[in-house]
Amino acid sequence: MGKRQLKLGLVPTGVGGPGQHNRWLDPEIPGDASVDIDWYIDVARQAEAALFDLVFIVDSQFITPHSPPHYLNRLEPLTLLSALAVSTSRIGLVGTLTTSYNAPFNLARRLASLDLISRGRAGWNVVTSGDAGTAGNYSRDKHYDYDTRYGRALESVSVVRGLWRSYEDDAFPRDRASGRFLDPAKLHRLDHRGEHFSVVGPLNIQRSPQGEPVIFQAGDSEQGRDLGAAIADGIFTHAPSIEQGRAFYADVKGRAERLGRDPDRIVVMPGVSITVGDSDADAIEIEQAERRSDHSFEQALTEFGRSFGWHDFTQYDPDAPFPAHTLEFAKSSFFTNARKLTDLATSQNLTLRQTVETTRKHHPGPFVGSAETVASRIVEWFESRALDGLNIHMNHPAQFRRFTGEVVPLLQERGVFRSGYTHETLRGHLGLPVPSNRRVECAA
Amino acid sequence: MGKRQLKLGLVPTGVGGPGQHNRWLDPEIPGDASVDIDWYIDVARQAEAALFDLVFIVDSQFITPHSPPHYLNRLEPLTLLSALAVSTSRIGLVGTLTTSYNAPFNLARRLASLDLISRGRAGWNVVTSGDAGTAGNYSRDKHYDYDTRYGRALESVSVVRGLWRSYEDDAFPRDRASGRFLDPAKLHRLDHRGEHFSVVGPLNIQRSPQGEPVIFQAGDSEQGRDLGAAIADGIFTHAPSIEQGRAFYADVKGRAERLGRDPDRIVVMPGVSITVGDSDADAIEIEQAERRSDHSFEQALTEFGRSFGWHDFTQYDPDAPFPAHTLEFAKSSFFTNARKLTDLATSQNLTLRQTVETTRKHHPGPFVGSAETVASRIVEWFESRALDGLNIHMNHPAQFRRFTGEVVPLLQERGVFRSGYTHETLRGHLGLPVPSNRRVECAA
Ligand SMILES: Cc1cc2nc3c(=O)[nH]c(=O)nc-3n(C[C@H](O)[C@H](O)[C@H](O)COP(=O)(O)O)c2cc1C
Ligand SMILES: Cc1cc2nc3c(=O)[nH]c(=O)nc-3n(C[C@H](O)[C@H](O)[C@H](O)COP(=O)(O)O)c2cc1C
Repeated sequence: MGKRQLKLGLVPTGVGGPGQHNRWLDPEIPGDASVDIDWYIDVARQAEAALFDLVFIVDSQFITPHSPPHYLNRLEPLTLLSALAVSTSRIGLVGTLTTSYNAPFNLARRLASLDLISRGRAGWNVVTSGDAGTAGNYSRDKHYDYDTRYGRALESVSVVRGLWRSYEDDAFPRDRASGRFLDPAKLHRLDHRGEHFSVVGPLNIQRSPQGEPVIFQAGDSEQGRDLGAAIADGIFTHAPSIEQGRAFYADVKGRAERLGRDPDRIVVMPGVSITVGDSDADAIEIEQAERRSDHSFEQALTEFGRSFGWHDFTQYDPDAPFPAHTLEFAKSSFFTNARKLTDLATSQNLTLRQTVETTRKHHPGPFVGSAETVASRIVEWFESRALDGLNIHMNHPAQFRRFTGEVVPLLQERGVFRSGYTHETLRGHLGLPVPSNRRVECAA
Repeated sequence: MGKRQLKLGLVPTGVGGPGQHNRWLDPEIPGDASVDIDWYIDVARQAEAALFDLVFIVDSQFITPHSPPHYLNRLEPLTLLSALAVSTSRIGLVGTLTTSYNAPFNLARRLASLDLISRGRAGWNVVTSGDAGTAGNYSRDKHYDYDTRYGRALESVSVVRGLWRSYEDDAFPRDRASGRFLDPAKLHRLDHRGEHFSVVGPLNIQRSPQGEPVIFQAGDSEQGRDLGAAIADGIFTHAPSIEQGRAFYADVKGRAERLGRDPDRIVVMPGVSITVGDSDADAIEIEQAERRSDHSFEQALTEFGRSFGWHDFTQYDPDAPFPAHTLEFAKSSFFTNARKLTDLATSQNLTLRQTVETTRKHHPGPFVGSAETVASRIVEWFESRALDGLNIHMNHPAQFRRFTGEVVPLLQERGVFRSGYTHETLRGHLGLPVPSNRRVECAA
């Protein structure tokens, strides 16, 4: 293994994004960007030309007429990624799929198919569905409680990985002379019987050039962190400041180490916004202008409600004390985040408006400045182990071009980012080994 | 509407197919063709160059070490089709997905995504899973019984179609001047509460250029035929002879008519094998040679077992009377087919071997002959309403080239097949209208 290298991911959210409900007003962005495959192909190719490690597709399956634009209309992540797989050749393709409302056999099959179609570039971001309303779309009155959500997640990953190992690597002799297609001793059933699932197997798909898809995890509670430490190759998170980033990084790698895992085999990649200007002052001004035009208080209030099960906060006086009883609506949504906000509001006696303001983009954010400043900041975070890589929320197309055109070359100069792809698979890019699939026990 | 036109579909099964377990011995077929996206793209493009209506992907999710090669290793249908969507521009893309082991919201989402990615070329072949063993991969000890399977299928299609109509066609003004992205009155919840599913909705995807995906159905029992007549735009079936084809055609269109549907709005497309030779005798010889090399009695026995829940028939004396008690193993598999075979065996006192022989390709099949003969035969079946189109099982690549190069031009000369695409969507190719999505009731 060579020198530690920064990882770069692109999170293309199309017509809007966190804190940016009105991004679609940018005439460079098609009004239907979030369902326009040509738009996705174009941005994925831009990221690939800039040698990014991966494209990262987030997800949600619950909307109301009040949902922000980028929630209203979106492609299912894996269907989207399969189209990108044959439109790119090197970049990794990570899709968010929930273990709360998918059967493990289906997850295993679809991800393994993407892995073969992309020739070893697939990844899975394991989530438990932050939007409680998703339950109503899957024949349930209520979302699963946290223990069930995380229990299903852990068991799902174990089943999915078991299924991915149905065939040993040399299971198919495909010998035309002898007519032998399969070596049946190298095909294994799973015979899993667990608390949430029973799955006999085997999976009807061979392994890919990277063995099996890379697994990311997103979820911030104790249970979420334990899950990530136990099973993930990569972690998707938020990092509002370098201190918070370092604390999270140390925490999750420590958990992994205590489970006997090599902490270098987990890449921590927070989602970040980046604004590049001609100078620091110019960048600050760009961000300020975006902030003004892109996000009214009403819109921020809607987005704020997401962590509380999309609870409608417009019913409260914004200038009265924060309505702390609303935490109960968050129980089966993004509870960790909702509790953090509620604790902050109560401990500091904030109004609703003040609480919502704390969730809006910090201004200036840590990655706002000239290309030099942004590159230095990234190197600082990277070297002080606040992150192993960045998942960059693609804001305005012009900004992304500045990042790839101006910041990436500086990262290369400083020796923290590749100047050419050295691998063909996502596992290769991330410096992760191919998981072994050798069986020592007797064939079933 | 112009003159009635023949429809053509391609069923690419890669390394093998019904009655052809050893097709992978053909050096022109990669040993991993059934998971090789480049192979699929190549054959889909060949079919598109020949102006085919659609590519049709069949499916199975249950294997054992004894399964035929084309079952052992295959891509998940929709993941595959999404990659084909951006590698072709006109041909329809129909994928098999079971209503027994998929939640309707997930089906609706994935198919709607494919429909947008392909710009209106998606289709769904609704099946209830013929392989009873699939149950074990989805946390069930037993496959659903027939009533439940078909009850779920009918309810699933109704939910999926309801979700596809979540947005009215003009729901998104996306007006940059006024900042108005959505017209919330044109987004509708479903609020479905049924016997098998409850789904609140709405779906987070707009409609496609063809409105919504085309629906095929495959399943031959009374219940299967009623389902097809009630909900399908197209029927996938078998037609071993012109008489059987005509009887099925009349039956299913009659059922549709009795339900008040226009029978011309359902296309009946049996799966067929085609062998083209320089002369009729040459074609018969080609088929005979394939038959000899491609399918041993043991292999035929394995395939025969599929209808009986992959029951192992090698345990019986092939020359003793057919073991009729095995019908019980078919109860939750392909029961209609298994009962037909058992009835035949008992009524005619057949041995196991003789019964299996009746299922092997009839020789010569109806579509075996010179290009002239094959074209005439197709026109005859088409004009006597034994079919509206053919789903052609792609056997050897050389044979497919002969079909597209020699037979298709004759079909064009005779005026039954297009000589250029006249539409952009699958619905357009098949002569089906875009389903309406206008709401007259008050918005919820
Ligand atoms: C950084 C981050 C990204 C997430 N992305 C998604 C997502 O794309 N889709 C989703 O349904 N849930 C997503 N989640 C939700 C988690 O899976 C989880 O349900 C939620 O965060 C509540 O769990 P927690 O309290 O452990 O964070 C994300 C969570 C975090 C922290
Ligand atoms: C022509 C035809 C094609 C079928 N294709 C599939 C398939 O690709 N995958 C699958 O799981 N089941 C498939 N089925 C199975 C049906 O969905 C159904 O489960 C089975 O035929 C038993 O129902 P039946 O007695 O109504 O035919 C097919 C059935 C027919 C008749």
